[in-house]
Amino acid sequence: MHEGSSAAVQDYYPEDVAHCFGCGRLNEQGHQIKTYWEGEETVTRFTPKPYHIAILGYVYGGLIASLIDCHSMATAAAASERAAGREVGDAPSPRFVTAALHVDYLRPTPLGQELEIRGRVKDLQERKVIVEATVSAKGTVNARGEVVAVRMPNSMAFRPSA
Amino acid sequence: MHEGSSAAVQDYYPEDVAHCFGCGRLNEQGHQIKTYWEGEETVTRFTPKPYHIAILGYVYGGLIASLIDCHSMATAAAASERAAGREVGDAPSPRFVTAALHVDYLRPTPLGQELEIRGRVKDLQERKVIVEATVSAKGTVNARGEVVAVRMPNSMAFRPSA
Repeated sequence: MHEGSSAAVQDYYPEDVAHCFGCGRLNEQGHQIKTYWEGEETVTRFTPKPYHIAILGYVYGGLIASLIDCHSMATAAAASERAAGREVGDAPSPRFVTAALHVDYLRPTPLGQELEIRGRVKDLQERKVIVEATVSAKGTVNARGEVVAVRMPNSMAFRPSA
Repeated sequence: MHEGSSAAVQDYYPEDVAHCFGCGRLNEQGHQIKTYWEGEETVTRFTPKPYHIAILGYVYGGLIASLIDCHSMATAAAASERAAGREVGDAPSPRFVTAALHVDYLRPTPLGQELEIRGRVKDLQERKVIVEATVSAKGTVNARGEVVAVRMPNSMAFRPSA
Protein backbone atom coordinates (compact mmCIF):
# COMPACT_ATOMS: atom_id res chain seq x y z
CA MET A 1 0.00 0.00 0.00
CA HIS A 2 3.02 2.30 0.19
CA GLU A 3 3.82 2.49 -3.50
CA GLY A 4 3.41 5.66 -5.51
CA SER A 5 0.01 7.22 -5.13
CA SER A 6 -2.02 9.18 -7.63
CA ALA A 7 -3.54 11.35 -4.90
CA ALA A 8 -1.79 14.66 -4.23
CA VAL A 9 -1.75 15.90 -0.64
CA GLN A 10 -2.70 19.42 -1.72
CA ASP A 11 -5.84 18.28 -3.51
CA TYR A 12 -7.23 17.28 -0.11
CA TYR A 13 -6.48 20.46 1.86
CA PRO A 14 -9.79 21.93 3.05
CA GLU A 15 -10.94 24.80 0.83
CA ASP A 16 -10.37 27.49 3.44
CA VAL A 17 -6.65 26.60 3.68
CA ALA A 18 -5.99 25.96 -0.03
CA HIS A 19 -4.81 29.44 -1.07
CA CYS A 20 -1.09 29.15 -0.35
CA PHE A 21 1.06 30.79 -3.05
CA GLY A 22 3.30 27.74 -3.13
CA CYS A 23 0.86 24.88 -2.87
CA GLY A 24 -2.72 26.08 -2.81
CA ARG A 25 -4.85 24.71 -5.62
CA LEU A 26 -7.08 27.81 -5.30
CA ASN A 27 -4.24 30.32 -5.83
CA GLU A 28 -4.33 31.07 -9.55
CA GLN A 29 -1.07 33.07 -9.48
CA GLY A 30 0.77 30.52 -7.35
CA HIS A 31 2.98 27.51 -8.01
CA GLN A 32 0.26 24.92 -7.21
CA ILE A 33 2.78 22.21 -6.46
CA LYS A 34 1.56 18.63 -6.05
CA THR A 35 3.11 16.17 -3.62
CA TYR A 36 2.77 12.39 -3.78
CA TRP A 37 3.96 9.40 -1.82
CA GLU A 38 6.58 7.24 -3.50
CA GLY A 39 7.19 4.42 -1.06
CA GLU A 40 8.42 5.96 2.20
CA GLU A 41 9.38 9.21 0.49
CA THR A 42 7.31 12.07 -0.83
CA VAL A 43 7.96 13.60 -4.23
CA THR A 44 7.09 16.91 -5.90
CA ARG A 45 8.13 17.71 -9.45
CA PHE A 46 8.25 21.31 -10.59
CA THR A 47 9.72 23.14 -13.56
CA PRO A 48 10.73 26.74 -12.74
CA LYS A 49 9.65 29.53 -15.06
CA PRO A 50 12.32 31.15 -17.26
CA TYR A 51 12.23 34.24 -15.02
CA HIS A 52 12.97 32.30 -11.80
CA ILE A 53 16.57 33.41 -12.07
CA ALA A 54 19.29 33.73 -9.45
CA ILE A 55 22.25 34.38 -11.72
CA LEU A 56 21.57 33.87 -15.43
CA GLY A 57 21.28 30.14 -16.09
CA TYR A 58 20.53 29.18 -12.49
CA VAL A 59 17.38 28.80 -10.38
CA TYR A 60 16.42 31.47 -7.83
CA GLY A 61 17.28 30.31 -4.32
CA GLY A 62 14.09 31.80 -2.92
CA LEU A 63 12.09 29.50 -5.17
CA ILE A 64 14.11 26.51 -3.99
CA ALA A 65 13.40 27.48 -0.38
CA SER A 66 9.71 27.87 -1.22
CA LEU A 67 9.52 24.45 -2.85
CA ILE A 68 11.22 22.81 0.13
CA ASP A 69 8.86 24.64 2.47
CA CYS A 70 5.56 23.66 0.85
CA HIS A 71 6.76 20.16 0.01
CA SER A 72 7.66 19.64 3.65
CA MET A 73 4.25 20.81 4.87
CA ALA A 74 2.65 18.27 2.55
CA THR A 75 5.04 15.58 3.79
CA ALA A 76 4.12 16.38 7.37
CA ALA A 77 0.43 16.13 6.51
CA ALA A 78 0.81 12.85 4.63
CA ALA A 79 3.02 11.27 7.28
CA SER A 80 0.79 12.24 10.18
CA GLU A 81 -2.18 10.79 8.35
CA ARG A 82 -0.32 7.58 7.56
CA ALA A 83 0.63 7.30 11.22
CA ALA A 84 -3.09 7.49 11.97
CA GLY A 85 -3.83 4.71 9.49
CA ARG A 86 -5.04 6.88 6.63
CA GLU A 87 -3.61 7.40 3.15
CA VAL A 88 -3.84 10.60 1.09
CA GLY A 89 -7.41 10.99 -0.13
CA ASP A 90 -9.00 8.99 2.68
CA ALA A 91 -9.78 12.24 4.51
CA PRO A 92 -9.00 15.97 4.29
CA SER A 93 -5.23 16.59 4.54
CA PRO A 94 -4.33 18.27 7.84
CA ARG A 95 -2.72 21.68 7.41
CA PHE A 96 0.73 22.22 8.86
CA VAL A 97 2.55 25.55 8.97
CA THR A 98 6.27 26.27 9.05
CA ALA A 99 8.01 26.98 12.34
CA ALA A 100 11.55 26.85 10.97
CA LEU A 101 13.14 26.40 7.56
CA HIS A 102 16.77 25.62 6.84
CA VAL A 103 18.28 25.26 3.37
CA ASP A 104 21.85 24.42 2.42
CA TYR A 105 22.63 25.36 -1.18
CA LEU A 106 25.21 22.78 -2.21
CA ARG A 107 25.71 23.94 -5.79
CA PRO A 108 23.91 26.16 -8.32
CA THR A 109 20.71 24.61 -9.70
CA PRO A 110 20.48 24.84 -13.50
CA LEU A 111 17.42 26.55 -14.97
CA GLY A 112 15.44 24.98 -17.80
CA GLN A 113 14.69 21.56 -16.41
CA GLU A 114 12.33 19.81 -14.05
CA LEU A 115 13.29 19.77 -10.40
CA GLU A 116 12.55 16.85 -8.14
CA ILE A 117 11.93 17.56 -4.48
CA ARG A 118 12.02 14.50 -2.23
CA GLY A 119 11.06 14.42 1.44
CA ARG A 120 11.53 12.07 4.35
CA VAL A 121 10.27 12.29 7.90
CA LYS A 122 13.02 12.74 10.47
CA ASP A 123 10.76 13.02 13.52
CA LEU A 124 7.02 12.69 13.83
CA GLN A 125 4.93 13.84 16.76
CA GLU A 126 1.25 14.61 17.01
CA ARG A 127 1.64 18.36 16.59
CA LYS A 128 5.16 18.68 15.18
CA VAL A 129 6.94 16.95 12.31
CA ILE A 130 10.53 17.44 11.17
CA VAL A 131 11.07 16.83 7.47
CA GLU A 132 14.28 16.47 5.49
CA ALA A 133 14.16 17.34 1.80
CA THR A 134 16.41 17.42 -1.23
CA VAL A 135 16.12 19.33 -4.50
CA SER A 136 17.61 17.60 -7.54
CA ALA A 137 17.97 18.28 -11.24
CA LYS A 138 18.79 15.33 -13.50
CA GLY A 139 19.69 13.21 -10.51
CA THR A 140 22.12 15.65 -8.90
CA VAL A 141 21.19 16.97 -5.47
CA ASN A 142 21.66 20.74 -5.50
CA ALA A 143 20.07 21.73 -2.21
CA ARG A 144 19.12 20.12 1.08
CA GLY A 145 16.54 21.35 3.53
CA GLU A 146 15.25 20.65 7.01
CA VAL A 147 11.89 22.00 8.01
CA VAL A 148 9.97 22.07 11.28
CA ALA A 149 6.24 21.77 10.60
CA VAL A 150 3.60 22.38 13.26
CA ARG A 151 -0.07 21.58 13.03
CA MET A 152 -1.92 24.78 12.19
CA PRO A 153 -3.36 26.40 15.30
CA ASN A 154 -7.07 27.24 15.18
CA SER A 155 -6.14 30.85 15.92
CA MET A 156 -4.80 31.17 12.39
CA ALA A 157 -8.16 30.44 10.80
CA PHE A 158 -9.28 33.37 8.71
CA ARG A 159 -12.04 35.44 10.24
CA PRO A 160 -13.43 37.87 7.67
CA SER A 161 -14.61 40.19 10.45
CA ALA A 162 -11.14 40.45 12.02
CA MET B 1 28.68 59.11 7.00
CA HIS B 2 26.77 56.06 8.23
CA GLU B 3 23.29 57.57 8.19
CA GLY B 4 20.61 56.45 5.77
CA SER B 5 21.76 56.39 2.18
CA SER B 6 19.75 57.03 -0.95
CA ALA B 7 21.81 54.52 -2.95
CA ALA B 8 20.38 51.00 -3.18
CA VAL B 9 22.85 48.12 -3.24
CA GLN B 10 20.98 46.42 -6.10
CA ASP B 11 21.23 49.46 -8.37
CA TYR B 12 24.99 48.91 -8.44
CA TYR B 13 25.09 45.18 -9.21
CA PRO B 14 26.88 44.70 -12.55
CA GLU B 15 24.40 44.19 -15.40
CA ASP B 16 25.30 40.56 -15.95
CA VAL B 17 24.31 39.66 -12.36
CA ALA B 18 21.22 41.89 -12.06
CA HIS B 19 18.54 39.37 -13.13
CA CYS B 20 17.71 37.77 -9.79
CA PHE B 21 13.97 37.18 -9.31
CA GLY B 22 14.15 38.65 -5.82
CA CYS B 23 16.48 41.58 -6.25
CA GLY B 24 17.54 42.03 -9.87
CA ARG B 25 16.60 45.41 -11.34
CA LEU B 26 16.59 43.75 -14.79
CA ASN B 27 14.02 41.06 -13.88
CA GLU B 28 10.68 42.53 -14.94
CA GLN B 29 8.66 39.74 -13.33
CA GLY B 30 10.64 39.81 -10.09
CA HIS B 31 10.34 41.58 -6.75
CA GLN B 32 13.11 44.11 -7.47
CA ILE B 33 13.76 44.78 -3.80
CA LYS B 34 15.97 47.71 -2.83
CA THR B 35 18.28 47.66 0.15
CA TYR B 36 19.76 50.72 1.89
CA TRP B 37 22.03 51.45 4.81
CA GLU B 38 20.41 52.96 7.88
CA GLY B 39 23.27 53.52 10.29
CA GLU B 40 24.84 50.13 11.00
CA GLU B 41 21.80 48.24 9.76
CA THR B 42 20.44 47.60 6.30
CA VAL B 43 16.77 48.05 5.48
CA THR B 44 14.49 46.79 2.71
CA ARG B 45 10.82 47.70 2.57
CA PHE B 46 8.44 45.57 0.56
CA THR B 47 4.67 45.23 0.32
CA PRO B 48 3.57 41.71 -0.65
CA LYS B 49 1.02 41.29 -3.42
CA PRO B 50 -2.51 40.22 -2.44
CA TYR B 51 -1.80 36.75 -3.81
CA HIS B 52 1.29 36.18 -1.65
CA ILE B 53 -0.84 34.11 0.69
CA ALA B 54 0.10 31.40 3.18
CA ILE B 55 -3.25 31.00 4.93
CA LEU B 56 -5.86 33.64 4.05
CA GLY B 57 -4.84 36.91 5.71
CA TYR B 58 -1.18 35.98 6.16
CA VAL B 59 2.00 36.34 4.11
CA TYR B 60 3.47 33.33 2.29
CA GLY B 61 6.48 31.97 4.17
CA GLY B 62 8.37 31.33 0.96
CA LEU B 63 8.20 35.04 0.18
CA ILE B 64 9.50 35.87 3.65
CA ALA B 65 12.41 33.48 3.12
CA SER B 66 13.07 35.05 -0.29
CA LEU B 67 13.12 38.58 1.14
CA ILE B 68 15.51 37.54 3.90
CA ASP B 69 17.72 35.82 1.35
CA CYS B 70 18.10 38.69 -1.12
CA HIS B 71 18.25 41.31 1.62
CA SER B 72 21.10 39.39 3.22
CA MET B 73 23.06 39.17 -0.04
CA ALA B 74 22.77 42.94 -0.35
CA THR B 75 23.84 43.36 3.26
CA ALA B 76 26.89 41.19 2.65
CA ALA B 77 27.78 43.27 -0.41
CA ALA B 78 27.34 46.59 1.37
CA ALA B 79 29.23 45.50 4.47
CA SER B 80 32.16 44.07 2.57
CA GLU B 81 32.42 47.30 0.59
CA ARG B 82 32.23 49.41 3.73
CA ALA B 83 35.00 47.29 5.28
CA ALA B 84 37.06 48.17 2.20
CA GLY B 85 36.37 51.88 2.70
CA ARG B 86 33.66 52.25 0.08
CA GLU B 87 29.99 53.19 0.41
CA VAL B 88 27.17 51.97 -1.83
CA GLY B 89 27.46 53.72 -5.20
CA ASP B 90 31.20 54.30 -4.99
CA ALA B 91 31.79 51.18 -7.09
CA PRO B 92 29.86 48.20 -8.49
CA SER B 93 28.28 46.15 -5.66
CA PRO B 94 30.01 42.77 -5.30
CA ARG B 95 27.69 39.83 -5.86
CA PHE B 96 27.26 37.31 -3.08
CA VAL B 97 25.32 34.06 -3.34
CA THR B 98 23.58 32.05 -0.64
CA ALA B 99 25.33 29.08 0.94
CA ALA B 100 22.79 28.55 3.73
CA LEU B 101 19.49 30.11 4.74
CA HIS B 102 17.71 29.69 8.05
CA VAL B 103 14.37 31.25 8.94
CA ASP B 104 12.44 31.02 12.21
CA TYR B 105 8.78 31.95 11.77
CA LEU B 106 7.86 33.45 15.13
CA ARG B 107 4.25 34.31 14.33
CA PRO B 108 2.04 34.71 11.26
CA THR B 109 2.81 37.84 9.23
CA PRO B 110 -0.33 39.81 8.32
CA LEU B 111 -0.95 40.48 4.63
CA GLY B 112 -1.87 43.94 3.37
CA GLN B 113 0.88 46.06 4.82
CA GLU B 114 4.48 47.00 4.18
CA LEU B 115 7.12 44.69 5.58
CA GLU B 116 10.42 45.95 6.92
CA ILE B 117 13.43 43.67 6.60
CA ARG B 118 16.42 44.73 8.68
CA GLY B 119 19.88 43.19 8.50
CA ARG B 120 23.01 43.20 10.62
CA VAL B 121 26.38 41.60 10.01
CA LYS B 122 27.21 38.83 12.46
CA ASP B 123 30.54 37.86 10.93
CA LEU B 124 32.46 39.38 8.05
CA GLN B 125 35.29 37.74 6.17
CA GLU B 126 36.71 38.44 2.75
CA ARG B 127 34.76 35.70 0.99
CA LYS B 128 32.04 34.86 3.51
CA VAL B 129 29.61 37.02 5.45
CA ILE B 130 27.01 35.89 7.99
CA VAL B 131 23.95 38.13 8.17
CA GLU B 132 21.13 38.23 10.71
CA ALA B 133 17.80 39.61 9.55
CA THR B 134 14.33 40.32 10.89
CA VAL B 135 11.02 40.76 9.10
CA SER B 136 8.55 43.12 10.78
CA ALA B 137 5.09 44.47 10.12
CA LYS B 138 4.00 47.59 12.01
CA GLY B 139 6.93 47.22 14.39
CA THR B 140 6.34 43.58 15.33
CA VAL B 141 9.05 41.10 14.41
CA ASN B 142 7.37 38.11 12.76
CA ALA B 143 10.37 36.21 11.44
CA ARG B 144 14.11 36.01 12.04
CA GLY B 145 16.71 34.75 9.64
CA GLU B 146 20.38 33.91 9.50
CA VAL B 147 22.08 33.65 6.15
CA VAL B 148 25.55 32.58 5.05
CA ALA B 149 26.63 34.59 2.01
CA VAL B 150 29.66 33.74 -0.08
CA ARG B 151 31.29 35.87 -2.72
CA MET B 152 30.12 34.64 -6.11
CA PRO B 153 32.66 32.29 -7.69
CA ASN B 154 33.75 33.19 -11.21
CA SER B 155 32.63 29.73 -12.29
CA MET B 156 29.01 30.86 -11.91
CA ALA B 157 29.35 33.57 -14.54
CA PHE B 158 26.95 32.95 -17.41
CA ARG B 159 28.57 31.69 -20.58
CA PRO B 160 26.10 31.83 -23.47
CA SER B 161 27.99 29.08 -25.27
CA ALA B 162 27.77 26.68 -22.31
